[in-house]
Amino acid sequence: MPHVQIHWFEGRTAEQKRELAEALTNEICRIGRCEPESVGIVFTDVDTSDWARAGKLFSDK
Amino acid sequence: MPHVQIHWFEGRTAEQKRELAEALTNEICRIGRCEPESVGIVFTDVDTSDWARAGKLFSDK
Amino acid sequence: MPHVQIHWFEGRTAEQKRELAEALTNEICRIGRCEPESVGIVFTDVDTSDWARAGKLFSDK
Amino acid sequence: MPHVQIHWFEGRTAEQKRELAEALTNEICRIGRCEPESVGIVFTDVDTSDWARAGKLFSDK
Amino acid sequence: MPHVQIHWFEGRTAEQKRELAEALTNEICRIGRCEPESVGIVFTDVDTSDWARAGKLFSDK
Amino acid sequence: MPHVQIHWFEGRTAEQKRELAEALTNEICRIGRCEPESVGIVFTDVDTSDWARAGKLFSDK
Repeated sequence: MPHVQIHWFEGRTAEQKRELAEALTNEICRIGRCEPESVGIVFTDVDTSDWARAGKLFSDK
Repeated sequence: MPHVQIHWFEGRTAEQKRELAEALTNEICRIGRCEPESVGIVFTDVDTSDWARAGKLFSDK
Repeated sequence: MPHVQIHWFEGRTAEQKRELAEALTNEICRIGRCEPESVGIVFTDVDTSDWARAGKLFSDK
Repeated sequence: MPHVQIHWFEGRTAEQKRELAEALTNEICRIGRCEPESVGIVFTDVDTSDWARAGKLFSDK
Repeated sequence: MPHVQIHWFEGRTAEQKRELAEALTNEICRIGRCEPESVGIVFTDVDTSDWARAGKLFSDK
Repeated sequence: MPHVQIHWFEGRTAEQKRELAEALTNEICRIGRCEPESVGIVFTDVDTSDWARAGKLFSDK
């Protein structure tokens, strides 16, 4: 039942998400010893104006 | 203070969210013994190309 | 694929979680038109000293 | 490493997010005794039709 | 309705959480123009062996 | 800035988390084209009595 939530900057392509979903699931099953069917992954694209580090919006960096 | 976050595929109507918000709040209060005013529910609609299971995006299934 | 995360105050029993998991899944499937097998629910128990409203920890109320 | 996720109603301006990112980071570092570079903040704007309290969608209130 | 989830390393005191809850709520209300009663804050303490950056667990740094 | 939250059943060892943190970071950087320093991963261990699927707690399955 691993449920993986990934927040990252918007701009990745469907192909990158496709490839990453497969790669992450393989590693989670290999190392975490679980079945692929049990692994859920949700991608959340975030605008750089909605993410801050060290008090500054990334859109302002 | 139950705070409920529901991630699900996009496509449900406002009417479904209205009905579900009421139904879930009733059950949480009945079983969890708390007041309706304390129950917050947030719906997050997710595109099938942003959700994967068993290493595959749902948009590819 | 509804994934439900419930944060609430600790203290509910396993029986309450058992009953609520069933009730919420029924309502989500009935209203949200999906299959029980697709519904995941995670309960997170939170201490009243880790939750604040209106600037005050619930443990101080 | 504080990671802060803020869900709130949509409608705040980039300027409000800019100002709040700075203010929250200052307080977290001052009180939580950590470095600004370690503080990440993500804003998630939520539509009033996706948020319910006491069984009612805020868009219906 | 701002709901704030803060994940940070465990080890902060109840007094730090008390002070931070008040300070963050003040800033969110001042800048985000909302009422204190609408602001919920949940602290989640995370062990350094459960948090990684740059591929390394903080407990190993 | 990818921030990854993994909820899974408790019971994995520190060594599994160490290995998985490295493997996931490598794949995210390779496919998502970002720097290791930007990738944060948080593991949350969940008891089987706090996770339900198809209306049943995993502790009851």
